[in-house]
Amino acid sequence: MLGNFTFSNPTKLYFGPDALQNLKAELEKYGPTVMLVYGGGSIKKNGIYDQVKKVLGDCGKKVIEDGGVMPNPSLEKLYDGIEKARAAGNVDFILAVGGGSVIDYSKGLSASIHCKEDPWKKYYVRQEEPDCPVVPVGSVLTMVGTGSEMNGGSVITNTAETMKIGKVFGEKLYPKFAILNPNFTLTLPHNQMVAGCFDIMSHIMEQYFSGKDDNTSDYLSEGLMRSLIHSSRIANKDPNNYEARSNIMWTATWALNTLLGMGKNGGDWEVHMIGHAVGAYTHATHGMTLSAVSLPYYRFVMEAGLPKFKRFAETVWEVDPKGKNDKEVAEEGLKKMGEWMKELGLAMNIKDLGAKPEMFEGIAKATIILKGGYKVLTQEDVIKILQAAYE
Amino acid sequence: MLGNFTFSNPTKLYFGPDALQNLKAELEKYGPTVMLVYGGGSIKKNGIYDQVKKVLGDCGKKVIEDGGVMPNPSLEKLYDGIEKARAAGNVDFILAVGGGSVIDYSKGLSASIHCKEDPWKKYYVRQEEPDCPVVPVGSVLTMVGTGSEMNGGSVITNTAETMKIGKVFGEKLYPKFAILNPNFTLTLPHNQMVAGCFDIMSHIMEQYFSGKDDNTSDYLSEGLMRSLIHSSRIANKDPNNYEARSNIMWTATWALNTLLGMGKNGGDWEVHMIGHAVGAYTHATHGMTLSAVSLPYYRFVMEAGLPKFKRFAETVWEVDPKGKNDKEVAEEGLKKMGEWMKELGLAMNIKDLGAKPEMFEGIAKATIILKGGYKVLTQEDVIKILQAAYE
Repeated sequence: MLGNFTFSNPTKLYFGPDALQNLKAELEKYGPTVMLVYGGGSIKKNGIYDQVKKVLGDCGKKVIEDGGVMPNPSLEKLYDGIEKARAAGNVDFILAVGGGSVIDYSKGLSASIHCKEDPWKKYYVRQEEPDCPVVPVGSVLTMVGTGSEMNGGSVITNTAETMKIGKVFGEKLYPKFAILNPNFTLTLPHNQMVAGCFDIMSHIMEQYFSGKDDNTSDYLSEGLMRSLIHSSRIANKDPNNYEARSNIMWTATWALNTLLGMGKNGGDWEVHMIGHAVGAYTHATHGMTLSAVSLPYYRFVMEAGLPKFKRFAETVWEVDPKGKNDKEVAEEGLKKMGEWMKELGLAMNIKDLGAKPEMFEGIAKATIILKGGYKVLTQEDVIKILQAAYE
Repeated sequence: MLGNFTFSNPTKLYFGPDALQNLKAELEKYGPTVMLVYGGGSIKKNGIYDQVKKVLGDCGKKVIEDGGVMPNPSLEKLYDGIEKARAAGNVDFILAVGGGSVIDYSKGLSASIHCKEDPWKKYYVRQEEPDCPVVPVGSVLTMVGTGSEMNGGSVITNTAETMKIGKVFGEKLYPKFAILNPNFTLTLPHNQMVAGCFDIMSHIMEQYFSGKDDNTSDYLSEGLMRSLIHSSRIANKDPNNYEARSNIMWTATWALNTLLGMGKNGGDWEVHMIGHAVGAYTHATHGMTLSAVSLPYYRFVMEAGLPKFKRFAETVWEVDPKGKNDKEVAEEGLKKMGEWMKELGLAMNIKDLGAKPEMFEGIAKATIILKGGYKVLTQEDVIKILQAAYE
């Protein structure tokens, strides 16, 4: 375990088919006005909206509705939400019912309602912490993948500037609780389910493919990846399999609640940086932007981190190393990952997401270059990866 | 993930060579009187006592010393500690500097200082929760293994009744923080280090060898066991290896902070029950009582949980299943575990711990029979296991 670090995660997780029964007692801890944040309205079709509204009614809450949060929540939407919250006079609690976009947006709101500056510049561009009061957030999760239910992450897209930036807020912004009922994820369209699975895989890999030390986090990562691969294959064929869906849900939360990053000095996260830039240009689903660029990226950096890619192949993909050199073992691991991705029906290139060669320079410029991975990229490298991801 | 469950763990972990620098800010959150709890005085020899006292002095705390906590802390000691705390008028905080015994004892104190009933009967025999105010506890860990630094566990031995009972308190009793500096564990005698390693292994196995479902926790357990086996082998030969010791320390905390038990409906814990009974008769080190009875116990229940023992062999011990039937694979896994235990120098039988055949009936009677494992034991079964563990 490298360096000095602090682990502290105050989010309370209620898991299981009856998890929503805990919502009332949680809401009763807060004041009367609740901002109810949700997405495109799928929760109205599958009955979750009605169940949540009933609990809010039972608690006697005044509810301010803020629906219509889009995938890749936009800065414009955030500004609208802030205005709506301020117009209400006071908001005591933000209840996010949805997936990562809804929770990310809710954290942005939480930090911005009482913020006197422009939140885009303060939190996302300058990466500062709030110095104003924040409004507590809780969540009812309906889509699995981002891990936003148990961390401080919040990604907002500035459409006008074609910039998608993630901010990792401190503990104050972590949701107070998360209601994790795997049954709430069953009506999700297949492509969103598998995109979520790849998002989880990517979160783990971003932390795993970093550092040359011997770290318990890497062993935990291997366990979570093995569980995810196993359960995603079951859920892909049988989306109503509760056991598989519940394992995926639990894996998603633990993949990105800071545990795997402990003693890892930050991780890589370059796939997310390229994926965010692709997303800002194509508005494609987050998980699909990650899947489309991952193999080209990992093939590009593989030789710089060969021992780890070899270990990944053997431990996660059960590649038999006999009679092969390290590079062959590592390549076979990535090949097996590609087979799993195709089996799930993930986007395997950025062309299918609507990217065009004339965007490459812009995407490369919008890609933030980080230094935690096995190879620090140049903008030319990013263009090479985009070209490989286009074929 | 089985059933409905809640995960919430409020303990803040400060990890690394500079972790003690966080003690001052933590202590400043509490009132002026601190009860400083420690064990047999090793912290006075290795300098940790002086470092902690300096911080207490810098905070201007009034310190009540309560040293001499023995391994397997006794009820008599707990009664003495309660009296000492009450005589001081008021205790605002309990700072536990030591290993699991010191922290377990401190939690007992925390719940008992303001308790009007006999804490042994209320908490340990009747397994009730405190209904009085509890005194907050924090810890500086100097011995690794029990996981007590991030959970509600507290094991107390009633010497007069030859009973050793564990109570798992709720969140209120979790330490507020734990200072985890791997360097603080380096002066530990070799036999205590390896006993701690086996204690960790046992905590993971007690949760792993339970249930027939498909559970992400089992994958996490496999990751932690692989990390522990790897690092314990390094630390066994080179106890000053910081990286190995830091991985062991981190693994210990996560092995028993409730994470691995989520969705597992309680786990097995029968090895601990037999080990506690052996400990009550022999006063042997906790980890050694577990190591001495583990292989006989697992061989006794193996066929009732064969698929899991086979998986354990292949995933954790890398047994090649080719050309072997399931039982042979499972047996080879336990054999490899035995080799690892011998390599570490763990107690391999209860004779070496001072147990005698005439104690078997008493030990079996003192063994609490649980129902979460692959086979529910009878008292005759316990005697058979003790006989096998004596040879």
